[in-house]
Amino acid sequence: MARNTQVAADHHAPPITQILARFVATHPSRGWSDAVEHEAHRTFLNWAGCAAGAATHEAMQAALAAVQMLQPAPQATILGRAERVDMAGAALLNGISSHTFDFDDTHLKTIIHPAGPVASAALALAEHVGASGRALIDALVLGIDVSCRMGNLMYPEHYDRGWHITGSTGTLGAAAACARLLGLDEQRTAMALGIAASQPVGLREQFGTMTKPFHPGGAARAGLLSALLAKQGFTASPRALEAPRGYAQVVSTKCAWNEATDELGERFEISFNTYKPFACGIVIHPSIDACVQLRERGVKPDEVERIELKVHSLVLELTGKKEPADGLQGKFSVYHGCAAGLIFGRAGEPEYADDIVTRADVVALRRKVVATVDDAIDEAAADVTAVLRDGRRIHVFVEHAIGSMQKPMSDAALEAKFAGQAEPVLGAARTAALIAGCRRVGAMPDVRELATLARP
Amino acid sequence: MARNTQVAADHHAPPITQILARFVATHPSRGWSDAVEHEAHRTFLNWAGCAAGAATHEAMQAALAAVQMLQPAPQATILGRAERVDMAGAALLNGISSHTFDFDDTHLKTIIHPAGPVASAALALAEHVGASGRALIDALVLGIDVSCRMGNLMYPEHYDRGWHITGSTGTLGAAAACARLLGLDEQRTAMALGIAASQPVGLREQFGTMTKPFHPGGAARAGLLSALLAKQGFTASPRALEAPRGYAQVVSTKCAWNEATDELGERFEISFNTYKPFACGIVIHPSIDACVQLRERGVKPDEVERIELKVHSLVLELTGKKEPADGLQGKFSVYHGCAAGLIFGRAGEPEYADDIVTRADVVALRRKVVATVDDAIDEAAADVTAVLRDGRRIHVFVEHAIGSMQKPMSDAALEAKFAGQAEPVLGAARTAALIAGCRRVGAMPDVRELATLARP
Repeated sequence: MARNTQVAADHHAPPITQILARFVATHPSRGWSDAVEHEAHRTFLNWAGCAAGAATHEAMQAALAAVQMLQPAPQATILGRAERVDMAGAALLNGISSHTFDFDDTHLKTIIHPAGPVASAALALAEHVGASGRALIDALVLGIDVSCRMGNLMYPEHYDRGWHITGSTGTLGAAAACARLLGLDEQRTAMALGIAASQPVGLREQFGTMTKPFHPGGAARAGLLSALLAKQGFTASPRALEAPRGYAQVVSTKCAWNEATDELGERFEISFNTYKPFACGIVIHPSIDACVQLRERGVKPDEVERIELKVHSLVLELTGKKEPADGLQGKFSVYHGCAAGLIFGRAGEPEYADDIVTRADVVALRRKVVATVDDAIDEAAADVTAVLRDGRRIHVFVEHAIGSMQKPMSDAALEAKFAGQAEPVLGAARTAALIAGCRRVGAMPDVRELATLARP
Repeated sequence: MARNTQVAADHHAPPITQILARFVATHPSRGWSDAVEHEAHRTFLNWAGCAAGAATHEAMQAALAAVQMLQPAPQATILGRAERVDMAGAALLNGISSHTFDFDDTHLKTIIHPAGPVASAALALAEHVGASGRALIDALVLGIDVSCRMGNLMYPEHYDRGWHITGSTGTLGAAAACARLLGLDEQRTAMALGIAASQPVGLREQFGTMTKPFHPGGAARAGLLSALLAKQGFTASPRALEAPRGYAQVVSTKCAWNEATDELGERFEISFNTYKPFACGIVIHPSIDACVQLRERGVKPDEVERIELKVHSLVLELTGKKEPADGLQGKFSVYHGCAAGLIFGRAGEPEYADDIVTRADVVALRRKVVATVDDAIDEAAADVTAVLRDGRRIHVFVEHAIGSMQKPMSDAALEAKFAGQAEPVLGAARTAALIAGCRRVGAMPDVRELATLARP
């Protein structure tokens, strides 16, 4: 659930990103003294000699062998596209697309979106090597366990500090999944985790830009490469995760080590995974859910005099935008969410299109939503009453929204969500086939069957 | 210079890297309940629908276009090898090899080894696009300026915390260099820096493993990809470096913003770059330098009764190994360093081969080195006296070792160092041609000429 956090922030930092970018982009060629120019050549010479000198070292043999496993392209599918690329590229791209609409899964204990890094890396590798669906699902469960356990170990301090925890733990989960798929033994799996530990991906500052979905993609790519390197004998510290200058202590001050090991192999973190029914921030979900229920109880938009909404103060603080001007702003408007729920019975990505958020009937309805704060109501709940023109009052109280741990989406709802997303890209028939394929993927002899279904 | 640092460390962390690796490698296939198995399929289904649904989003168009720039391989040279790979692979591999022997350059203010990430990314890209040597050198100078300025901004806190600062700042420098080579404008260069900011690479815990040299390689690869993405229109936060949850504040508590901007375009950090003459830790360098000078003054090993060495206590603390058993241990032995300096007149990687460190005459000479601590002598100095069998005493005091800022290696010494490294790989003639090529690279119309020289 969303929380208010404190950051020891310097809000007065100068715009150094822009300053350095201008410098790099516009400083004149050779705009420096002869001494600097000479030093640049010395630097280049020294670097080239070092590189050539170690070209046949065992580290290079292992790394080259790993890089060569990525050639030749194409090797793996980008879901929803005809183009195929190398495994690392497919891991990156599927990780990006799966998080682009912020509509993927959530491990609520840590706000990790676990499938993005792990499934993206695992499917790309599994397709290329022709792994079974069984091996893919095993890798998915184990990889997600590693990511989420490391998240449990560091959350919330690590997240509060500014790491996008999905990507920063996702490299580890992706490496674990790929190590499993490659059949690495315990020692090489430890090396894969170790190599991945040096590559956390993701800053919260990127939220609102394409680099946010890049994080699970970059994590998938880094984790996959780490496993390939480990397979080829590349080494890392066997204490890379826990050592004083290892992963956890470098990126977090909270290190609850027991979270990595308690009930290992008995409790699986994927059990705590949830799926978003609505393409917006989770604090709006109870309100939308309530409005969908009003619609199911027969409330028609044009009968509505007003909608009385009582919610926790956090809801309005985070999503209190009354007059959203476009789809992106709509995601921060509980008012639009309520209107969408009542009019469409859903709030997927299409209900956040610019022309829906600004459509006359949608705007008219959202203006009838009267929100009041009541901190006696939990952040995860909403109290909604539709007051109709004829004076009737229809009341819905949502204690836990659809999609929460307490009230998970049904399989049918998940399939409907899938169809709503994929049909515009793949068409109805191919979408239905892909859904069926995902349902039985654990029993597929070769996941290339599934990959084929995912291309238009 | 080496420093003692404090880490708020938990030395009693359980071995979770090994525990998780064993779990991932050995947990039985489908070793969980039906509920977990079902949730895994739901997770996979939900992920696949999200990925397919966003497959045509503009973020995906940009990312796919960037990935396609890495195809088809081969595109770029691995220095010292006949194989060629894609640009990202070449950036990775050259970054690894250039740091494998810990023999590359050092920006002493920050202990950054700046060329590894920056030159590796820049040369791979420059070769593939057929850039001029002028453009390559411009990119090198500007990229190193970005890396080292960001290092100045965060050092030492960032390093003390456990980041391998070469890789963690190297992604930024590599992205800057590649953005310059691609001719990106200021805004897209800012995006390249921003995307790179989400991908710091490197933990000090990896020292002593192959993942240490992976850090500059991984940084080169990440920086190159960041620039390719930015070229294709991929977005990041324009305040990715300085925002409260941006790069610097997430990975460092010290943020001396002025270091990014003071004298920008007037003072170039590459001016402060140094090159190691000896393939070992820098605290041994003054002692080796002194012994090389003794050799130049005619001292022969078999004339030596003993060598009296006076050094700062830190030297023996870090490198006081009296009886190194192999090459790696030899790097932590000031005694071996002195013997190598006097016998060979140098201490490159060949002088740290196992069979040199254990050779009878080398062992005999190192046992004649009598080291005493004198904290009146600076860490960067050494006081060495050869006492000969005939009673003569020959004294050398090194205030600043060769390779320091105060006493830089000459161009001829750099070329000799290059030859010592590259000749075993490339042969003498090709090595000489490559040295000459590096000397005039800034004037080459097309860096592919240089790349060709770097292949056996």
